[in-house]
Amino acid sequence: MTRVVYPGSFDPVTNGHLDIIRRTATIYDQVVVSVMVNINKKYRFTVEERVDMLREVTAGLDNVRVESSSGLLVDYCRREKFTTIVRGLRTVRDFEGELQMAQMNYGLAGVETVFMMTSQKYNFSSSLVKEVMHLGGDVSHLIAPTVLNRMKGSVAP
Amino acid sequence: MTRVVYPGSFDPVTNGHLDIIRRTATIYDQVVVSVMVNINKKYRFTVEERVDMLREVTAGLDNVRVESSSGLLVDYCRREKFTTIVRGLRTVRDFEGELQMAQMNYGLAGVETVFMMTSQKYNFSSSLVKEVMHLGGDVSHLIAPTVLNRMKGSVAP
Amino acid sequence: MTRVVYPGSFDPVTNGHLDIIRRTATIYDQVVVSVMVNINKKYRFTVEERVDMLREVTAGLDNVRVESSSGLLVDYCRREKFTTIVRGLRTVRDFEGELQMAQMNYGLAGVETVFMMTSQKYNFSSSLVKEVMHLGGDVSHLIAPTVLNRMKGSVAP
Amino acid sequence: MTRVVYPGSFDPVTNGHLDIIRRTATIYDQVVVSVMVNINKKYRFTVEERVDMLREVTAGLDNVRVESSSGLLVDYCRREKFTTIVRGLRTVRDFEGELQMAQMNYGLAGVETVFMMTSQKYNFSSSLVKEVMHLGGDVSHLIAPTVLNRMKGSVAP
Amino acid sequence: MTRVVYPGSFDPVTNGHLDIIRRTATIYDQVVVSVMVNINKKYRFTVEERVDMLREVTAGLDNVRVESSSGLLVDYCRREKFTTIVRGLRTVRDFEGELQMAQMNYGLAGVETVFMMTSQKYNFSSSLVKEVMHLGGDVSHLIAPTVLNRMKGSVAP
Amino acid sequence: MTRVVYPGSFDPVTNGHLDIIRRTATIYDQVVVSVMVNINKKYRFTVEERVDMLREVTAGLDNVRVESSSGLLVDYCRREKFTTIVRGLRTVRDFEGELQMAQMNYGLAGVETVFMMTSQKYNFSSSLVKEVMHLGGDVSHLIAPTVLNRMKGSVAP
Repeated sequence: MTRVVYPGSFDPVTNGHLDIIRRTATIYDQVVVSVMVNINKKYRFTVEERVDMLREVTAGLDNVRVESSSGLLVDYCRREKFTTIVRGLRTVRDFEGELQMAQMNYGLAGVETVFMMTSQKYNFSSSLVKEVMHLGGDVSHLIAPTVLNRMKGSVAP
Repeated sequence: MTRVVYPGSFDPVTNGHLDIIRRTATIYDQVVVSVMVNINKKYRFTVEERVDMLREVTAGLDNVRVESSSGLLVDYCRREKFTTIVRGLRTVRDFEGELQMAQMNYGLAGVETVFMMTSQKYNFSSSLVKEVMHLGGDVSHLIAPTVLNRMKGSVAP
Repeated sequence: MTRVVYPGSFDPVTNGHLDIIRRTATIYDQVVVSVMVNINKKYRFTVEERVDMLREVTAGLDNVRVESSSGLLVDYCRREKFTTIVRGLRTVRDFEGELQMAQMNYGLAGVETVFMMTSQKYNFSSSLVKEVMHLGGDVSHLIAPTVLNRMKGSVAP
Repeated sequence: MTRVVYPGSFDPVTNGHLDIIRRTATIYDQVVVSVMVNINKKYRFTVEERVDMLREVTAGLDNVRVESSSGLLVDYCRREKFTTIVRGLRTVRDFEGELQMAQMNYGLAGVETVFMMTSQKYNFSSSLVKEVMHLGGDVSHLIAPTVLNRMKGSVAP
Repeated sequence: MTRVVYPGSFDPVTNGHLDIIRRTATIYDQVVVSVMVNINKKYRFTVEERVDMLREVTAGLDNVRVESSSGLLVDYCRREKFTTIVRGLRTVRDFEGELQMAQMNYGLAGVETVFMMTSQKYNFSSSLVKEVMHLGGDVSHLIAPTVLNRMKGSVAP
Repeated sequence: MTRVVYPGSFDPVTNGHLDIIRRTATIYDQVVVSVMVNINKKYRFTVEERVDMLREVTAGLDNVRVESSSGLLVDYCRREKFTTIVRGLRTVRDFEGELQMAQMNYGLAGVETVFMMTSQKYNFSSSLVKEVMHLGGDVSHLIAPTVLNRMKGSVAP
């Protein structure tokens, strides 16, 4: 059985993330989506909220589980016996940062990273989606209704 | 069981390709390496030779099989029931061409492409390896001995 | 009145080109689509065929005219009093080649180039569309029916 | 009549910006330069100062008007009936961010973005110009005298 | 005699930096490694500590000297009669920022910049090394033992 | 004494190449410009003509010598005792190809490559200069008069 982990901030989950999750769930036996906690970063939503939103939008996907994790990603992989990390690639800029991370993670613990291209329809970062929404723009085609509702009720950014 | 196809020209297989094959064989149940035939391209080795060399260098990998294929890659995937294509990524330039191909293949047949980063040690294209060898340079750290022997006996390029 | 020229090979015109033409026709008073002839390049269709196909797919656009031109693009611009060239941008690789061309054309004749981003839906080169079609893939979502018919009746590539 | 908006921070306007404004004014009937206000960003100059400096350096250009705007750019475009946004492109890094913004703005409101390449002479960001000046370097070839004077009298950054 | 300056933050020096220093010392007569002080940046180590660590790891290299400097780099070059700055290049993203800096420095003072490619083994930024170490990862292959010891005794980041 | 080799096709030498040669001659004791011969490539000018043109345009530079070389570049470096290769960098696309070549050459023979950024004024490839000239464009600001005369008398390309 091939189990993979899809780590990220998911602050909040966008339709681009959800598309990667759905496609990953099609080609692997089990997908664990892991909300990463980095104490040096500022988030709009708490870990619990980010986990909740992910659970809501992935409710129909039987082989997807949502968790949270702190610390070094490869330590988490070793504890949980993941041999493969999944990451989405959108831009050349992503590419170089991700390449460096993948090589670091492989060097540290022999954990592989496989990359999936983001869908052309969802070619937008979480930051841009948040900024547009904050300025009153309609982003209902880019995030799920349940996430949209939570964003309306929360304080930016 | 997760089966993936790793398509390419492999003209000839380099240690960079072999590294991708080995790592893919670790994270998937079965890997089919497929030598693609494109009648518009000029190759140094015949399809049979390319298949033979791949079989020689992957002899110790039980879950790896070598085949050849012509025509549209996604038609081959449909016939053989592959849901996932594996490709190596080395450079930004690779990245943009591969992104376009992956989106085309997904659009044509819903076949996914996952990308693996090439190892830092093998950051060289087949063309560069062939050119250096042709000019008398030592490339024994970049291709397997069996491939090296065949290259010495063949006419460039 | 703002007149612009949109030059290219259009071998053949794709839905990506057509999207640029339509959007350009919305923001400028007149658009001249110019099929460029380069005697060093091999084309699948003759200049006349490429002009014909463009006329067919732009028939409903009143402020679009299709022509052909050979020689230096800026000479053509000077003769026809175009101050602005329109080009589509798809990838980082396009970007660098186009930047160099734009700076050359501005230096030679003070002719400006403005760039429009290609639509996410049509993120494919003519070459890839031709290759996929040649191998039997369905590209009916990427080129117009009239162009598709001509491609079926013509010899590759 | 073709009216376009050229939005930006202009903190302060550089000769690179001015070059884009002059060239845009040559190929469009009217250019509105719009100083954007983003409450989450820190600026060296106030909106009023940035507008003033732009008015000083564009004083000789009859078809250029300077304004300021806050909120979502496409809302401003709709209110003011702009169908086209003009942006300068300098680097591959600009390119990817701008591509994303252009696709977002087109999706939100059907507003087009056209890109102009920055002149080779002015291939420097506002941030670099400010940093060099702050450290005592001579930047008189990169910003107008009137802007230079204001920078000398203001507190960094 | 050809003297060059290799400026940077070195917060702290990594094996990637050390590799550039060693290779630079092989091809130039004298190399001055200069710890740059930028009052707007936050550093993990003081200037003195960064200079000390560099002196420790370069102790065996006779033609390498370590200094610190504040202010504009080209002013320092003029004072110290350096005609050449050495910089390492790792990624496309580095490349564009460095290109801009090199052209600025050449324009300001006629000081040249030469670039050396970083070794494939050390393809990691200081920031990533610090982040991994902070989370408990083993980075002993990426920084010297003396630097590692200081990092263990210091507060992040 | 620091001697470096600046290898290339120089088919023909442009003002961009000449700018690199002049700047290299300022920071190194001796510069050998080497016209490389690759039997698989088609050139517009013979090796002798390319050497002659380079000698004409570098006549005033005392520490510059022009030679030609065939075979593997690092073999030539070993024979001639060059420890350093100089290359110009213009674009991201150059960057990735050059990075691969530099790492190959270092791996094969421990020969270093240092990169210099091309001047903003000469941001054009030889191929573009030849194409523009072939179509009747004025390129007198991009190549030396002596080279221009030879190009007029030769057959394209």
